[in-house]
Amino acid sequence: MVTHDLQPRAMQDWKIVLTYDGSDFRGWQVQPGLPTIQGELQSALGRITGETPLPQGSGRTDAGVHALGQVASFTLAAPIPPENLLRAFNRTLPPAIRVLEASVVPHGFHARHDAVAKTYEYRILPGAADRCAPFLARYVYACPWKLDYAALVAAAEQFVGEHDFASFAASDPDLATRETGAEEPQSTVRTVFSSAWEERPTAEGNQLVYRVRGNGFLHHMVRNLVGTMVEIGRGFWKPEAVTEILAVRVRSAAGPTAPARGLFLHSVEYDSNNQ
Amino acid sequence: MVTHDLQPRAMQDWKIVLTYDGSDFRGWQVQPGLPTIQGELQSALGRITGETPLPQGSGRTDAGVHALGQVASFTLAAPIPPENLLRAFNRTLPPAIRVLEASVVPHGFHARHDAVAKTYEYRILPGAADRCAPFLARYVYACPWKLDYAALVAAAEQFVGEHDFASFAASDPDLATRETGAEEPQSTVRTVFSSAWEERPTAEGNQLVYRVRGNGFLHHMVRNLVGTMVEIGRGFWKPEAVTEILAVRVRSAAGPTAPARGLFLHSVEYDSNNQ
Repeated sequence: MVTHDLQPRAMQDWKIVLTYDGSDFRGWQVQPGLPTIQGELQSALGRITGETPLPQGSGRTDAGVHALGQVASFTLAAPIPPENLLRAFNRTLPPAIRVLEASVVPHGFHARHDAVAKTYEYRILPGAADRCAPFLARYVYACPWKLDYAALVAAAEQFVGEHDFASFAASDPDLATRETGAEEPQSTVRTVFSSAWEERPTAEGNQLVYRVRGNGFLHHMVRNLVGTMVEIGRGFWKPEAVTEILAVRVRSAAGPTAPARGLFLHSVEYDSNNQ
Repeated sequence: MVTHDLQPRAMQDWKIVLTYDGSDFRGWQVQPGLPTIQGELQSALGRITGETPLPQGSGRTDAGVHALGQVASFTLAAPIPPENLLRAFNRTLPPAIRVLEASVVPHGFHARHDAVAKTYEYRILPGAADRCAPFLARYVYACPWKLDYAALVAAAEQFVGEHDFASFAASDPDLATRETGAEEPQSTVRTVFSSAWEERPTAEGNQLVYRVRGNGFLHHMVRNLVGTMVEIGRGFWKPEAVTEILAVRVRSAAGPTAPARGLFLHSVEYDSNNQ
């Protein structure tokens, strides 16, 4: 005679904060047979708990894009203490992915739907091109030109506020809004809370770092903002061109997409009840 | 009728200084079908000049070991201006290998035979283990223990001077002396000019950096010195143990070989007529 445990196990909702070097992955989203961040997390969960929920990220990151503080959510039946899951993740995952925090959160938490703000960072080594230190090459855009810092600053300020960022969305319409955390998935309107450059001295030369915080970002938006500001920084366009580029709502009006390797998802914010 | 140019072309001896991220290479030495630093340089020279001399390094570096200032020498018939060869190298080589300097040197210069001193650097992130930032993971030894800095300093001082470093040579006798730049290839005696630790604050935590300068190094010697000092830093041995470990001249008396990823060939020195 077989007895069954008919007692339902309590499912728990989890939130993790993670950092990764995106260089050797085909982006966030799971793809059969290819190394992806989501796939590595799912596979690690399987080895740790025997359960294989697909972790939901705050947004997808493209191949080569890094994260300092990506957030993901998933549900588990296994009653595992958070500090144990954290340790098990970091023993199981490849060194290029590290989990920084793991916690049980209120039922229903979703890393993408519940995000209220995201911050990205983009790192440029100006005037470097083919002389970029190999230890930095995976983590910066070694830009061939010297850039006018004042022009970059003036351009960045103009992105603050609610704008239609259609000129800065990926030209593939299917992809343009896929990274959004906003309520209306087809809209290209987003609010940028802050948008600024800083100079960061490093052993391998002075980096220019762009940091942008907003309520959501279109696919390729940050890389297109940076690609446009690089055109302005090298004197190809004036900073005032930003107003017009925003107004025309045409991708071809803006600059090229800056390389993935300079982009870092810095952090994701939630309402305090989901912290 | 065929005419031949019987005029001999003037061969020129070259010296290059290069930096590389050794993570994705099988070390310095060329191996058929495998990515190596020497192989990449030879192949780049072939694409640039049509000539394929095998560049001679100041010493071999193992798989995963990096270089900030490795030196290599080779001979070319093509009369190419140094600044053009430098630029062509960096356009042709993978981003993980960058040539910093290229110059024509007096006839007969040899990067290994003529080296008079070499400096290595070894980087540790203490107490990190499985929490090491992914952007640093390829370039430090994320050591699981907290290390007693005063004990490291006391141990390092004892390596200064002329010693028989047999206890710190790779146990494979064929390999033990292969990295030497000294006159007697079978000797395990080397002179260490300086040997010291420094604390280096970084965004990802305080690194402990060991720098050692000497007239030549046995295979695995720096990694074995570090592995031994880590045993001392974690309190497993006293700093005074170094005297005894040197005296017994047995590999098993010293500590384990520290991981390749923390090791950087910092610089190589030559007499002024080869500069």
